Amino acid sequence: MILIGERINAGFKDIKAAIVDKNPAVIRDWARKQADAGANYIDVNMGTASNKVEDLCWMIELVQKEVDCLISIDNNNPAMLKQAIPVCNKPPLVNSVVAVDEKLDQILPIIAQYNASVIGLVMDESGSPKSADKRVENAGKLLAKAMEYDISPDHLFLDPIVMPLKYMQDQGKEILKAASQFQLFSDPPCHIVCGLSNMSNGTMHKKLINRVFAAMMVASGLDAIILDVLDEELVNTILTAELIMNKSIYADSYVEAFHRK
Amino acid sequence: MILIGERINAGFKDIKAAIVDKNPAVIRDWARKQADAGANYIDVNMGTASNKVEDLCWMIELVQKEVDCLISIDNNNPAMLKQAIPVCNKPPLVNSVVAVDEKLDQILPIIAQYNASVIGLVMDESGSPKSADKRVENAGKLLAKAMEYDISPDHLFLDPIVMPLKYMQDQGKEILKAASQFQLFSDPPCHIVCGLSNMSNGTMHKKLINRVFAAMMVASGLDAIILDVLDEELVNTILTAELIMNKSIYADSYVEAFHRK
Repeated sequence: MILIGERINAGFKDIKAAIVDKNPAVIRDWARKQADAGANYIDVNMGTASNKVEDLCWMIELVQKEVDCLISIDNNNPAMLKQAIPVCNKPPLVNSVVAVDEKLDQILPIIAQYNASVIGLVMDESGSPKSADKRVENAGKLLAKAMEYDISPDHLFLDPIVMPLKYMQDQGKEILKAASQFQLFSDPPCHIVCGLSNMSNGTMHKKLINRVFAAMMVASGLDAIILDVLDEELVNTILTAELIMNKSIYADSYVEAFHRK
Repeated sequence: MILIGERINAGFKDIKAAIVDKNPAVIRDWARKQADAGANYIDVNMGTASNKVEDLCWMIELVQKEVDCLISIDNNNPAMLKQAIPVCNKPPLVNSVVAVDEKLDQILPIIAQYNASVIGLVMDESGSPKSADKRVENAGKLLAKAMEYDISPDHLFLDPIVMPLKYMQDQGKEILKAASQFQLFSDPPCHIVCGLSNMSNGTMHKKLINRVFAAMMVASGLDAIILDVLDEELVNTILTAELIMNKSIYADSYVEAFHRK
C-alpha cells in the first residue's frame, strides 16, 4: 500500500499558523512523525493560508530536508505546479485533477513533462458522480486522456471520491463497486487511491469507520491511500487486508515488522 | 447480520468437561453471555465429548431455558437431527451439509420437513475447493438440491469455507470472490455465512485478522457469521461494515445502540 500522509494541510490550525508565521518547526515535525509512521508520500497543502507559490515551495523544501519521502503536491493550479514540481527531489504526485477536458489539457502536459504522477478524481463538469457507473465512465476518461499525453497507467491514481457515510450513506457501495472495476482497465493497472477521512466526516466513531472502510476498499483493489498515517490501528488494518488479498507475504509478526522499520 | 455464537462447542475444554460431567452451569453461562452480546443463534456442538443424542438434546434444552435465541445444531448425523430438531422451540439452523448428493439426500428432507435452515458448505467428494469457481459450482449444486426439496433459498446459508491465512494465504481472495458471486444466484438470495475464526488459526494477531476479514466479507455479501460474539471490537466492525453497505440506517450512536439492546 502506498501511504500518503494527510497531515501537512492548512485545514489543520497548526499548519495554517505555521504557513502564516513561516514557522518551519511545525512542518518539519509533522513530516518526521509521518515518515516514522511509514508514510511513502507526504501530502503538502497550503489551503487558504497562502496563495503564493513561494510558500508552497518552502513547505516542500522543508519536508524534503527533514525526511526522504516522496511529495504529494496538493494543488491544481498549473502555474504553481510548473514552479513547485521542479523543487521536488523526485517526481511527485499531483493531487489532483478532475475529468474535465479543459483541466486535463492544462495539468496532464505538466505531469508528462516531469514524469510525475497524478490523482485523477472521477468528478466531471456536473460535479461528483452518485453512481458506480458514472465513476467508472469518468475514470475511463481520465485514463484515456492520460494515455493521450503518454502518461503510463501506473502514473495515474484513480480516486472514486469518497463521500461521508453520515450524509450520503448510499455512496459506500457505489464507491466499492467502482473501485473494483477500475482494476480491470489496463495492464499495468492504474493505481486506486482514496481520501479516507471523508468517509467518517461528522461521525462519532471516526477511527472505527475509517478502519472498516479501508479494509473493504483493499478488497476492491485500493493500493494507495491518503490517511492519518499516525493511526496505528488503521495502518495495521491495511497491512492485514493486504495479507488477506495475498499482496504481501504472511509472517506471524507482520505488524511488528512494519512498525520496526 | 445474523450472529451465530460459536462458544458452546466441545472444542473448548470447559464445554467438553460440562458435557462429560453433565454440568449445566457452564452451558447456561455461555448461552447467557452470548445472548447478552447480541447472538441471534447459539451454536451447539458436542464434538467428541459425546455421541449420544440425549446429550445434544440436553444442551439444546439448557440453552433454550436460559435464553431466547435460535439454535444452530452443529451436527450432520441424520438420525440425531431427527431427534434434536423437534426439541427446538423454533426451527433451527443445521450446521452443516456438504455438496455431496448422498449427504444432501439424507439431510435436506429433514430440513424441509421441519422448516429448518441449513448451512451448505461448498465442499464436495474431492474435499475443499481451492478456487472461487469451484466454490461457486458447489454452491450452485447446494442451491439446486435445496430447491428440489422445496427449501426456500433464504433457508440455505452458503458457506464458502474459510481457510487459514497462515497456511493457505492464496485462499482469501478466492473466498471473497466466491461469496460475491453467491449473491447473484437467486432472488430472494441465499444467506452467505462463514466460520470466521478459521481465518486466523495459528496466527499471532487473531482478533485483528478476524476483524479485517469480517469487514471484507461484508463487502462480498456476508449476512451471517459464526463468531466469538463476545469480541466487541469484532461486532463493532461488522456493524460498521453493514452501515457502509447501507444495510442499516446510520445514527451517530449506532455502536452504543446495539450494545444497549
